[in-house]
Amino acid sequence: MLALRCSAGQLILDPVAPLPANSGEALVRVTLAGICNTDLEILRGYMDFAGVPGHEFVGIVEHSPSGQLKGRRVVGEINANCTVCATCRAGHPTHCPHRTTLGIAGRDGAHAEYLRLPERNLHIVPDSVSDEAAVFTEPLAAALEIPDRVAIRPTDRVAVLGDGKLGLLVAQVLALNGCDLLLLGHHPEKLQIAAGRGIATRVSASDDDLPAPATFDVVVECTGHPDGFALAWRLVRPRGTLVLKSTFHGDLTVNMSQVVVDEVTLVGSRCGPFPPALRLLAAGRVDVQGLIDSCFPLQQGVEAYAHARERGTLKVLLKP
Amino acid sequence: MLALRCSAGQLILDPVAPLPANSGEALVRVTLAGICNTDLEILRGYMDFAGVPGHEFVGIVEHSPSGQLKGRRVVGEINANCTVCATCRAGHPTHCPHRTTLGIAGRDGAHAEYLRLPERNLHIVPDSVSDEAAVFTEPLAAALEIPDRVAIRPTDRVAVLGDGKLGLLVAQVLALNGCDLLLLGHHPEKLQIAAGRGIATRVSASDDDLPAPATFDVVVECTGHPDGFALAWRLVRPRGTLVLKSTFHGDLTVNMSQVVVDEVTLVGSRCGPFPPALRLLAAGRVDVQGLIDSCFPLQQGVEAYAHARERGTLKVLLKP
Repeated sequence: MLALRCSAGQLILDPVAPLPANSGEALVRVTLAGICNTDLEILRGYMDFAGVPGHEFVGIVEHSPSGQLKGRRVVGEINANCTVCATCRAGHPTHCPHRTTLGIAGRDGAHAEYLRLPERNLHIVPDSVSDEAAVFTEPLAAALEIPDRVAIRPTDRVAVLGDGKLGLLVAQVLALNGCDLLLLGHHPEKLQIAAGRGIATRVSASDDDLPAPATFDVVVECTGHPDGFALAWRLVRPRGTLVLKSTFHGDLTVNMSQVVVDEVTLVGSRCGPFPPALRLLAAGRVDVQGLIDSCFPLQQGVEAYAHARERGTLKVLLKP
Repeated sequence: MLALRCSAGQLILDPVAPLPANSGEALVRVTLAGICNTDLEILRGYMDFAGVPGHEFVGIVEHSPSGQLKGRRVVGEINANCTVCATCRAGHPTHCPHRTTLGIAGRDGAHAEYLRLPERNLHIVPDSVSDEAAVFTEPLAAALEIPDRVAIRPTDRVAVLGDGKLGLLVAQVLALNGCDLLLLGHHPEKLQIAAGRGIATRVSASDDDLPAPATFDVVVECTGHPDGFALAWRLVRPRGTLVLKSTFHGDLTVNMSQVVVDEVTLVGSRCGPFPPALRLLAAGRVDVQGLIDSCFPLQQGVEAYAHARERGTLKVLLKP
């Protein structure tokens, strides 16, 4: 089959990649896939991954071990867990120490004609949700992981930092409960997508454009850059919550005594729940159409990645 | 009056320090005070404080603006807040941006014959609580801030790192609800104090002596050393909570992407509530007597600090 393949920081088009073997898992024919910032970080060395990248997809089940999903249109949770270890039994399957992760760790991903995943990872997509919307289920679920872990009140002041794909999804999700939310970014045309949904936005080109320090109950860092942390730290109030969504290659230097003195809570947040993401998409409560930059055929996947890497590009899709 | 005074990293005995003026605040004659690790960090430059150090005390009210506390034996919350700013009105007086803090920031402290504090900061000590116990109210309150902010279940596995004064108080407080708690330290004689209260302890002299990684639901870092963070990080499970209690002078380098991937919650915790601390002392549910190393007259305060600074010393008290 046709697939993209990354190895030692290089991405190539592999026209004769092996078809994923039948191994008791479902076989899915990918109909649409998305390129995520994590995919770009992986090419920079994050996670030391070699194989087929990609973890955002929608597709049709070609083979289903139970027979129940054959022919159905599905999206898929990306962590394949062991189901039997203490972590899995404690209800944290996405943290299973034996897990593989689609296109990220130990498992070929979605930037290919076919992929495989355990049948339990798949979720049927409602007919009312198009492929172009369904392909956003995984990042939307990641945004929903924030309110799933942090109680955000309708009376809270919330700042979302970063007007990239993730920031735009997070802002839309968190604004749903009526909280006083401000999305900060560098790109007026991207902020406009959120503004169109009634979300307050601000272009912050310099320190003079920033809100008053220590004024937000919750700050979500989605910039994808190490310097986003310093800004988030500046904005969160004492005893407030700073949610970290960005993953990037490298370390950060933090004054931990200040974390103690200001009694701030830092929460790391990664993969989230698919069912509420599909419900929000089906109800049209989140705009994902406006987040699509372009769609490339899989054959032009290398060019698609190059385009996705350009500063300011929104979601680039791949069509096998 | 007699007082200790720190300035530019030097501690001196000042026999003619001015008596705190009557300024609408209560005047307290200190009967017993404690030396805290924070006091030692302040002498190393933490908080850039110059003045009378000390924030752990018990004393007798000599002057009370309302008249209601005159002659009463009291302990005192150390943050003097403005009561009118948004932070105070939101219920976070210990984070008031205009606050002064006894012996730490902008306000002379307890290592003197007298101190002053707003009357609202004072709590009457029950007769059944001795001065030697009451002087532990402030650090015990700091330990109680942990369960006041983090829900710790009786079924949780909890690790407390550090067998210093704070670690021994934290371990005793957290063990009260029946959780599966392990106190890790370097000093068998100190761990014995906790063991005597039925708390599991372990001497960790090398990496071989450590519990299995990623096995604790909650880890509390009380070592007072920057390298305590790495150990805490190693022990906390994915989606677990790491509580930071130590303040020290300097920064830490952290892999924040790992915080995101493991979805760990970091909680900074500082000052805590006095009323439950007094209730626990009155009920004898926490052993503080065993934490006392020695008691020096205030006149020998410089020597007392030197002794407190020696590795492995427990609580050193000062008697004016």
